[in-house]
Amino acid sequence: MDAVRTHSTPLHVRYHETDQMGVVHHANYVNWFELGRTEFMRAHGLDYAEMERRGVLLAVADVGLTYLKPARFGELVTVESRLSSVERVRVLFEYEVKRGADLLCRGHTLLACVGRDLKPQRIPEADRAKMVALASAPLAPRRR
Amino acid sequence: MDAVRTHSTPLHVRYHETDQMGVVHHANYVNWFELGRTEFMRAHGLDYAEMERRGVLLAVADVGLTYLKPARFGELVTVESRLSSVERVRVLFEYEVKRGADLLCRGHTLLACVGRDLKPQRIPEADRAKMVALASAPLAPRRR
Amino acid sequence: MDAVRTHSTPLHVRYHETDQMGVVHHANYVNWFELGRTEFMRAHGLDYAEMERRGVLLAVADVGLTYLKPARFGELVTVESRLSSVERVRVLFEYEVKRGADLLCRGHTLLACVGRDLKPQRIPEADRAKMVALASAPLAPRRR
Amino acid sequence: MDAVRTHSTPLHVRYHETDQMGVVHHANYVNWFELGRTEFMRAHGLDYAEMERRGVLLAVADVGLTYLKPARFGELVTVESRLSSVERVRVLFEYEVKRGADLLCRGHTLLACVGRDLKPQRIPEADRAKMVALASAPLAPRRR
Repeated sequence: MDAVRTHSTPLHVRYHETDQMGVVHHANYVNWFELGRTEFMRAHGLDYAEMERRGVLLAVADVGLTYLKPARFGELVTVESRLSSVERVRVLFEYEVKRGADLLCRGHTLLACVGRDLKPQRIPEADRAKMVALASAPLAPRRR
Repeated sequence: MDAVRTHSTPLHVRYHETDQMGVVHHANYVNWFELGRTEFMRAHGLDYAEMERRGVLLAVADVGLTYLKPARFGELVTVESRLSSVERVRVLFEYEVKRGADLLCRGHTLLACVGRDLKPQRIPEADRAKMVALASAPLAPRRR
Repeated sequence: MDAVRTHSTPLHVRYHETDQMGVVHHANYVNWFELGRTEFMRAHGLDYAEMERRGVLLAVADVGLTYLKPARFGELVTVESRLSSVERVRVLFEYEVKRGADLLCRGHTLLACVGRDLKPQRIPEADRAKMVALASAPLAPRRR
Repeated sequence: MDAVRTHSTPLHVRYHETDQMGVVHHANYVNWFELGRTEFMRAHGLDYAEMERRGVLLAVADVGLTYLKPARFGELVTVESRLSSVERVRVLFEYEVKRGADLLCRGHTLLACVGRDLKPQRIPEADRAKMVALASAPLAPRRR
């Protein structure tokens, strides 16, 4: 990933994140993506806790994950997060979870801006401007 | 437990509830207690979802669990829940998790009634009357 | 979905599955898919707990989820699971989560058969024969 | 707590740890205790991942938690962990979760040393010696 626009969040695998296969249960990567995205945003002046208090919620509309290698308890992994594109209502983030140079998982989440009533609304212009400045490919339509 | 005042909630152990020890991770029993309590209440005319919509929240103030035997993926276990005592603000539930006749875990949760601001408030009289009628030892002070 | 080859798993939304948006957190649907798949398999003579004891593990290789409407605490939802296609090593399941007639979420999981060492292995013939008989589109290549 | 024998683990509250009450769901503190304990042990030459590979498992036998104030998404909290006492088979840890000077939750976990078959075994002498050196009240019988 492009180092400039990518945020790297290190985390230690927690015991409760493992399952009886002896590796991290796949659902936890969804939470790790969320953590990576939140830290990415906070590092760039978009504090999601504060956005929610203003009534600007980002609801998850689509998630995809491809698993390449397992992670294990106690290992240090990093979540690399990237804001790929911004539309009027939606934002696309992409992620890579790595252990050192090993790619363990990659994926994306598409978020839709909603109000407290969970109805779609435009991303407020001030937030959107920050997102556009951070996006790897600003204004481009989402590719699947 | 007293069959009359006890509610039994069956559940199958879900895969993601296991950890790399090959058994159910201990934190999940806290969620199972919550499930047992919720179903106990619903079965007796206390719909917790509806209570929250009325601004009557039950926040957990204290939890204790003793683990006797492990549960495994796919097993059918039952959560036996009992409302032990009711005070003006607080309610004590007790639980046993069983697999057939085997006792796997027992414990309690002490709940405090709070408003939407999370400040303590008296349990509304109509709700409290239902709870008192269900309690194993109505009006008795909580024993620890 | 085709009623014949679809398995329907009802579940009540658990309180701990909600988040501060007031709805079910999106990661839980990954676990619901897993639950639906496990019950689908069990209903058709493929007991996954027993398969793992034989050293036949199904590791998740790819997951996708599209969220359409939120689910809320206490609601009864159903997970409709379908085995879409079977290859030598991999199996594709598809899911719909519904509340009554409302479609809340749809998605898929691609599983790869692995041994206890987590290395890919062919699905044992007896298991594979059962899967092929259940598949909506037996032997067809996976479409993405 | 005694600063010398206490380990402090900082963590940011993750979004998925909240529930619809708008605060951290109480079950997550059990996982935070586990994280604090694991980091405490690692900081003092007791790598739990490595212990498990040697067949030395610590199974949770008893957990207790008292909740005083809620934690919220995005907040920085610290888990202060202390090894209170060590017996031949069992170890008692105590915890405080704080946000700055505010005490949010305190509790304990009693762990029993077991083998891969989950049967109790004595803590190996080398591990036990390290634990005794770290304990706040070495060799004292456990008080409840």
